Amino acid sequence: MTDLSANHHDSIRAVLWQGDHLRLLDQRRLPFEETYVDCASADDVAGAIRDLVVRGAPAIGIAAAWGVVLAARKDPDRLDDAWALLRAARPTAVNLMWALDRMRRVGTDVDALAREAQAIQDEDLAANRRMGELGAALLGDGAGVLTHCNTGSLATAGYGTALGVIRAGFAAGRIARVYAGETRPWLQGARLTVWELLRDGIPATLIADSAASHLMKTGAVQWVVVGADRIAANGDTANKIGTYQLAIAARHHGVKFMVVAPSSTVDMATAEGDDIDIELRSPDELLGYGGRRTVVEGAQAWNPVFDVTPASLIDAIVTERGVVERPDAARMADVFRRH
Amino acid sequence: MTDLSANHHDSIRAVLWQGDHLRLLDQRRLPFEETYVDCASADDVAGAIRDLVVRGAPAIGIAAAWGVVLAARKDPDRLDDAWALLRAARPTAVNLMWALDRMRRVGTDVDALAREAQAIQDEDLAANRRMGELGAALLGDGAGVLTHCNTGSLATAGYGTALGVIRAGFAAGRIARVYAGETRPWLQGARLTVWELLRDGIPATLIADSAASHLMKTGAVQWVVVGADRIAANGDTANKIGTYQLAIAARHHGVKFMVVAPSSTVDMATAEGDDIDIELRSPDELLGYGGRRTVVEGAQAWNPVFDVTPASLIDAIVTERGVVERPDAARMADVFRRH
Repeated sequence: MTDLSANHHDSIRAVLWQGDHLRLLDQRRLPFEETYVDCASADDVAGAIRDLVVRGAPAIGIAAAWGVVLAARKDPDRLDDAWALLRAARPTAVNLMWALDRMRRVGTDVDALAREAQAIQDEDLAANRRMGELGAALLGDGAGVLTHCNTGSLATAGYGTALGVIRAGFAAGRIARVYAGETRPWLQGARLTVWELLRDGIPATLIADSAASHLMKTGAVQWVVVGADRIAANGDTANKIGTYQLAIAARHHGVKFMVVAPSSTVDMATAEGDDIDIELRSPDELLGYGGRRTVVEGAQAWNPVFDVTPASLIDAIVTERGVVERPDAARMADVFRRH
Repeated sequence: MTDLSANHHDSIRAVLWQGDHLRLLDQRRLPFEETYVDCASADDVAGAIRDLVVRGAPAIGIAAAWGVVLAARKDPDRLDDAWALLRAARPTAVNLMWALDRMRRVGTDVDALAREAQAIQDEDLAANRRMGELGAALLGDGAGVLTHCNTGSLATAGYGTALGVIRAGFAAGRIARVYAGETRPWLQGARLTVWELLRDGIPATLIADSAASHLMKTGAVQWVVVGADRIAANGDTANKIGTYQLAIAARHHGVKFMVVAPSSTVDMATAEGDDIDIELRSPDELLGYGGRRTVVEGAQAWNPVFDVTPASLIDAIVTERGVVERPDAARMADVFRRH
């Protein structure tokens, strides 16, 4: 087993093409177990996306692209089935649909499809590096930053979106400390983000999601920096449940709010946040913990795993194509008009 | 083992005087294990308060009063030690100090002290019933209510504070559904509140703490109803971590915000919320769950277990002495001037 505590984040790869199958780091078992799920078919990949073996909007898109390659290797004449299956795996993150649409335009040639999947993966990494520079430039000096969920190497092709900005900002001496919300119910912040930050030697403090406002009141945080699963044409942003609450609290305390996502997360075909399909997952994710039931039988739970932050609460949307400050439909169109 | 699922909330008693010792329902093990911790000394009681065997501001005060009785039975000339020990058990809930001050005024006679402790317990139950009536009268018809932490029979002498208002409101047909935040890190909402509500047949839905704003946006909630651990002279209210965040979100969405607590929670000697000592508990409460570690070694966590909601975000403070709407120092003094 690889030493997971080594201090070199570039070694973390969530999605690994193996030439004839796709290997996914099983993120449900991190940070204590480094295990992999090997996918030999599009069906395997769709299941891994559904079950959160792989998560994070960009990583889901990349995995789905390789899923199409697996389908083409099996039967290039039946790619429509694979597209439908993969597209239905999770509804909210638009990167999944974006990657599948891009693969569809390639046709059915296996080698061409594999080159396109690799391009999607490589471009994501490059976009993250670029967003890191652009986002870090917005931070003041010695900022305290609060982030939510995991947006790092695990959620992308590497480096990360919001966590990429944090990495770049820390490297530039602009970040003094990062606060990570634990991110119920799957604890991506507690399990994954704290782990990635510690590996990079970035001072990190875990908080309960419910402590964010109290933290802001102490003055410890100047920026909230988060990722996105889908950004509508007017800048409304769907992201992990709890993001909206952070945006409300940030505005209340005069804390700035930054969304960091590749342009593949921007969905100009969706006019506004109300049009985004919000995934509801099983109540069981709230009714127990680590296989241990915590709530009495018969209890109901409501488990939306994303919410929508209106553009009016966002100070900047950072993409590799540029930064949209105080986003609205006009400013978004300036950068992302369809071409 | 008693059937915990029986539908009669009056059977739940967190604090039971047994004539020569104090029996506390171990709330850390609920809802699946009904076990008790027997306390034979003030030291035992202080430990049980510190370790969350008993929790909830009124229940802590009642337990501490019985702790003084235990100390008096052992040595009535050394009560000062017991007072100091119990007072230091937890810093934020003022009911603890209030109950100890009240016991101190009785003197050292064991029988008189026992009568006073019983009076504190009985009066708390009566206050809860009265607050239930007063608070329920503020609700509209068919309201959706969001609550936080546990403020029910387990947190009091019985019936509950915020949960008492919910019980009375449901009985009066004014509540359609209750949403309970799970309340990290100890999950009092998930483990305790959902259990109490189901026993009473009140429709209850559990949510992640981070889903509260998204829930409010759907229009499902008209009132947030919470308890309190200390209310300052100007109406600023310390309560379980996350309460402040709910108050900000409630104001943002036009949802009303009600605090329900007995007058023993009002601390007219504390001018405002900034003067309240907020308890920081061990980071370990966030770094694992149920004995299972979830966060890598070396991680830091910040674990304040209360926060302060400013009076300006509170629509009504309900006590057994009356309701203070739009609380401020003057309106609080009208009801609670020291006498």
